Amino acid sequence: MSRLAWTTAGESHGKALVGVLSGFPAGVELALERVDRELARRQGGHGRGGRMKIERDSAELLAGVRAGRTLGSPIALALTNRDATIERLPVPTNPRPGHADLAGCQKLWMRDPRAVLERASARETAMRVALAGVARQLLEHFGVEIVGHVVELGGVAVDAAAVESAFASASDARAALREASAFYALDPAVEERMRARVEEARAVGDTLGGVFEVRALGLPPGLGSYHSGPERLTARLGGALFSIPAMKAVEFGLGFEAARRPGSQVQDPILPAPGGPFGRFGRASNRAGGLEGGLTTGEPLVARVAMKPIPTLRQGMSTVDFETGEPVQATYQRSDVTSVPAASVVGEAVVALELAAAFLERFAGDALPQVEAAYAAHVEALRQL
Amino acid sequence: MSRLAWTTAGESHGKALVGVLSGFPAGVELALERVDRELARRQGGHGRGGRMKIERDSAELLAGVRAGRTLGSPIALALTNRDATIERLPVPTNPRPGHADLAGCQKLWMRDPRAVLERASARETAMRVALAGVARQLLEHFGVEIVGHVVELGGVAVDAAAVESAFASASDARAALREASAFYALDPAVEERMRARVEEARAVGDTLGGVFEVRALGLPPGLGSYHSGPERLTARLGGALFSIPAMKAVEFGLGFEAARRPGSQVQDPILPAPGGPFGRFGRASNRAGGLEGGLTTGEPLVARVAMKPIPTLRQGMSTVDFETGEPVQATYQRSDVTSVPAASVVGEAVVALELAAAFLERFAGDALPQVEAAYAAHVEALRQL
Amino acid sequence: MSRLAWTTAGESHGKALVGVLSGFPAGVELALERVDRELARRQGGHGRGGRMKIERDSAELLAGVRAGRTLGSPIALALTNRDATIERLPVPTNPRPGHADLAGCQKLWMRDPRAVLERASARETAMRVALAGVARQLLEHFGVEIVGHVVELGGVAVDAAAVESAFASASDARAALREASAFYALDPAVEERMRARVEEARAVGDTLGGVFEVRALGLPPGLGSYHSGPERLTARLGGALFSIPAMKAVEFGLGFEAARRPGSQVQDPILPAPGGPFGRFGRASNRAGGLEGGLTTGEPLVARVAMKPIPTLRQGMSTVDFETGEPVQATYQRSDVTSVPAASVVGEAVVALELAAAFLERFAGDALPQVEAAYAAHVEALRQL
Amino acid sequence: MSRLAWTTAGESHGKALVGVLSGFPAGVELALERVDRELARRQGGHGRGGRMKIERDSAELLAGVRAGRTLGSPIALALTNRDATIERLPVPTNPRPGHADLAGCQKLWMRDPRAVLERASARETAMRVALAGVARQLLEHFGVEIVGHVVELGGVAVDAAAVESAFASASDARAALREASAFYALDPAVEERMRARVEEARAVGDTLGGVFEVRALGLPPGLGSYHSGPERLTARLGGALFSIPAMKAVEFGLGFEAARRPGSQVQDPILPAPGGPFGRFGRASNRAGGLEGGLTTGEPLVARVAMKPIPTLRQGMSTVDFETGEPVQATYQRSDVTSVPAASVVGEAVVALELAAAFLERFAGDALPQVEAAYAAHVEALRQL
Repeated sequence: MSRLAWTTAGESHGKALVGVLSGFPAGVELALERVDRELARRQGGHGRGGRMKIERDSAELLAGVRAGRTLGSPIALALTNRDATIERLPVPTNPRPGHADLAGCQKLWMRDPRAVLERASARETAMRVALAGVARQLLEHFGVEIVGHVVELGGVAVDAAAVESAFASASDARAALREASAFYALDPAVEERMRARVEEARAVGDTLGGVFEVRALGLPPGLGSYHSGPERLTARLGGALFSIPAMKAVEFGLGFEAARRPGSQVQDPILPAPGGPFGRFGRASNRAGGLEGGLTTGEPLVARVAMKPIPTLRQGMSTVDFETGEPVQATYQRSDVTSVPAASVVGEAVVALELAAAFLERFAGDALPQVEAAYAAHVEALRQL
Repeated sequence: MSRLAWTTAGESHGKALVGVLSGFPAGVELALERVDRELARRQGGHGRGGRMKIERDSAELLAGVRAGRTLGSPIALALTNRDATIERLPVPTNPRPGHADLAGCQKLWMRDPRAVLERASARETAMRVALAGVARQLLEHFGVEIVGHVVELGGVAVDAAAVESAFASASDARAALREASAFYALDPAVEERMRARVEEARAVGDTLGGVFEVRALGLPPGLGSYHSGPERLTARLGGALFSIPAMKAVEFGLGFEAARRPGSQVQDPILPAPGGPFGRFGRASNRAGGLEGGLTTGEPLVARVAMKPIPTLRQGMSTVDFETGEPVQATYQRSDVTSVPAASVVGEAVVALELAAAFLERFAGDALPQVEAAYAAHVEALRQL
Repeated sequence: MSRLAWTTAGESHGKALVGVLSGFPAGVELALERVDRELARRQGGHGRGGRMKIERDSAELLAGVRAGRTLGSPIALALTNRDATIERLPVPTNPRPGHADLAGCQKLWMRDPRAVLERASARETAMRVALAGVARQLLEHFGVEIVGHVVELGGVAVDAAAVESAFASASDARAALREASAFYALDPAVEERMRARVEEARAVGDTLGGVFEVRALGLPPGLGSYHSGPERLTARLGGALFSIPAMKAVEFGLGFEAARRPGSQVQDPILPAPGGPFGRFGRASNRAGGLEGGLTTGEPLVARVAMKPIPTLRQGMSTVDFETGEPVQATYQRSDVTSVPAASVVGEAVVALELAAAFLERFAGDALPQVEAAYAAHVEALRQL
Repeated sequence: MSRLAWTTAGESHGKALVGVLSGFPAGVELALERVDRELARRQGGHGRGGRMKIERDSAELLAGVRAGRTLGSPIALALTNRDATIERLPVPTNPRPGHADLAGCQKLWMRDPRAVLERASARETAMRVALAGVARQLLEHFGVEIVGHVVELGGVAVDAAAVESAFASASDARAALREASAFYALDPAVEERMRARVEEARAVGDTLGGVFEVRALGLPPGLGSYHSGPERLTARLGGALFSIPAMKAVEFGLGFEAARRPGSQVQDPILPAPGGPFGRFGRASNRAGGLEGGLTTGEPLVARVAMKPIPTLRQGMSTVDFETGEPVQATYQRSDVTSVPAASVVGEAVVALELAAAFLERFAGDALPQVEAAYAAHVEALRQL
């Protein structure tokens, strides 16, 4: 089998987004509604403006599946854009700060921000969410759960204890808690303050960023590699999280805090833990965020990601007109106040795609029974280690 | 020409580290002493223990160069290990927390941490520094300067104003400032406190982490791509920085701070700047750290990276014996108190390798005159834009 | 810019074939009818059976183009299958010799040849023809013409002199000649014998293979690389031609004949050729088929490819029933007598995709003017060499 | 684990050739003399000139092995050049036809054939033979034997029946037969005629090409993929064989002959074969050369490759002086009459590297026991199919 790989195409206001996921094993039962559920979550969250209502994404399966099961061949999905107006939309006459507009025009030697923004737009992430909606069904088959949730919005932070309590709960309870939150947060106590922060920003025509966390539970130890830098799972996950537009920081486990504590308060002591799901070694803590030496440790993977505020401001932003070279206010397109909740869904998606790839490198197979056999052999070997 | 690519091989106590850099244009004059200078910097910095004294690395050029100029063919370097004792060194009987030891043994189904640690060791980064020492000579030919420096050590932070003043100085003055610092910091005032912090940690058998920053000056706008997530330069640089062992967080520009400010205080307004080196558009600030939409903006690239403390502690660390399954103290190998200064050199290296790759994608050429022609055409076109 | 890359998805009787071409520069004017013309040629040619009439392929552009010009973002195409019956079609109870059926079932551990044949089918090549129909429009902009034609069918061979005379003619005349042939041959004299050979095979329920040639005219010298084996253009083109189902042999220039002649009758002497399009060096012959040292020489590229007969025979073929393990006759699905003419179109396509990739590595650009500048600089430099 | 990959560096008269093989599992016992044996074979064979005597290659292991077993980390090898005269050797003043000289100078915009020929030289293949000498030890562990032998030299062909008889013999007998031949042929009866043909060519200052065959025995069915064109094993093997300098044609199984026979005489009927090593399906013939639908069939892989004669002729060759632009005779460097026997060793090597990669994709593992478990599961599943 070939390595799990994916590609996307599509402009923000083009006909459709298209995605292809290859290297996925045959025989996996796929629920398309599982994909659509993630797409709906990406479109939800408090603070979103109007476009989300037009677009209600639904994935169309074009290839790779028969009778509800994967064939092992590339899986192709399409998301039709209802707002497919690319041929009619005007070409902005100035580049908007904070977007790819200016650097993109410089890259192309063109005074045509639309040629840039149509693809640089975060709309593309919808297809990554869809493809990950497929990939994670494999991970879920092996008991891996991936949870994205918002931990900070415009400076309003959740309580760490509330989050830990949610992760101490059963999966369903945790999901229900998040579903009840307009901000995809796991701390109901913070909801009102986040809402107030959004309305405050909206009132002055400003926007908000925030921080989300992605955890992956149930990963066996030993995924990833230390054989070369780029193969380290830390590098692959870090690169994946920074591949989402507008992300400015990523940390694993203690993150920046690890740089400030002495070593004795950073490492995770190893303890005997007979009867564990992945053998007899356990940990006293998980400050590493589930990664040591570029490998999964068997503890939950924990990544936190900082998103900058949406750069399209109703209150205006200084830029320069292409023709006149004079200062002007950037073209304003109706925009959301914040999209951190949505970004947490995209964060889950890119993590799911990387983890599925790492999983299938280690437990390779052209068809599911082969993957199952490799996984079972690993679990058994860990018990003997 | 093919894409710039590199690979390394070699164990920590094996015969040699080997590196191959391919896709590098012909006709570039190479100074091997430039490579050795970076290798020496990687081995320096206060807080290092004994091995650094044995190893004084010097790169041997095995292929790809004739008469001091590159041939366009793959460039091969070797670093001979003076301490090539891999066949004699004992196999630890327990896995050390904070290293790849346990997860690596689980990956391999082997009770043999040495099989893991020999490659998982940060020794490998010496070869990346060497390869980057080649790659950056191309970037320097085009006026790109890459500067790594330590901004925080064990909680002791440099003064931001001192750093900005160093970057407002000439390149030579900045280099001299850093060279005068045992911690590769650009703030002389902090030197004594950092030294005290290291000695304090050493006294109790503990270790320290810290934060370093890498800046790249002189980059033209438009490098990178927004055509797919993984092609975004943000993703590639983020992945590269996380590919260094022990890095737990990465941020660009404002980083986490960007998540807390309103949008109006995060974006960088565009201003007319006639007569600039890359055309007539300028910026009022560089909060983005030189990256918008996954592309270089023409402003300095600014990345900050958090390193956890070295996980080998003289004061001991709890782990489990492979044979008995009983709790023991982890095998202690003589170790440094901190290697954040060295890590800043590695940070420069991985950034240099990624930037050289992005540069050569945009200004492709089999030989230097072709790269020069493409670069000159870009600068000229930016003036016309 | 990233390297030109493509991917396809889609089953033979699934909803659609999907293709994505990425790394293609912005600003290229695309004619979709040019794509459809190649698709029609792939479906034509004497000796085809019924399905070709149902399918009349027409490419739908889903992404990557605005106002008739490429955007630089990935280009996505779809070909809707009119015969989208995958959910209804039966699972054969035995594997057909000569297809992927048996080895595919063994690969997947499944007694389900349909899970295999739907993707292993040559139907997939339609999408490669479509993607190449895009890619070659760039090559044509730079004067590169790619011509596939049949030189042998079921043992009936064209006259070499007729072919050379066609290549000595103008492009239009050559195209007209080929269009007039039911077998895409450049020798009208052979038409009747080929037709008779097909009817003879049809009468006995047998099938025919043949040989086609692909030539590429107008390529500048120096494309490809000798820096590593897999980068040699010979390797890339050879691999591409063998990536077409049913191809059993590939040769360049003299091919097997080169192995039999002495060296003095194999090499192509270099001659002064002042005023040539690519500088002052010329060749007395083109026995190499336009490739030396893995590079284009500036002479026409000439590749010949042998296709085996279609393995689905009306007269039957021995195989084994999956359930009973007893010998049976393979399931017969209505099939063509030969598809060598169609294969010559696919051959053009895979050559076009490889050449466009090699062209864009050498003359890289995010947008067409950048490619044009790099190409012009090369032509000028060749004049000075 | 990562995909098996390799890279080489090194000039013909540089310090050393360097090679790195990554993605190779841990725990494989390596015999370095097995590598040197293949290197010696590559340097042998009748018809070779002087350099082969100076160079007696011996691989030095720099990384990736401890106590005679692989570590899973990249394996690095070096071959020191005794004739490391690159800095002293003159720059030819004219390009030699049949080499990369002219197209290479055009690629680089340099009148410097030495900058080209040092890397374009077939010397590089020595490192591929060395790396394959490692890779094939894994294949041999699983009973795969790869045999290259010469079937035609300057038009003198072996007898097909002699070859089949050699392949009907035991492995040792076959090896002994080939070892007894100065031309690495499996037909002793042809030895004298080949020798005479070489001497005849030598006498007139000419050179000879030929055809070699590579067979791989013991491959399980189902390696490779039909999911995309480039993944087809046919494409990968075809590309690999064309990556060897001087190869002008490649065919699998019947090859060109398949294009001339009717379908009924080309396919390989499937037969019940209870008790076979890979399940209960067998074949009545192996006209496909062991590949159907881009997958191994379980029958021997059979590839034939045509090599053109060495292009450096004592009798002279017309070319053009770079400075004067006048016709001259190409610079003559002492050269062999033929290197087809050596090429058959290189052919084995590139096939071994591709097959090892395909094998490890299907039976992936970070360490040998994991590969063994995946292989055993496959064999067992084939029995149940």
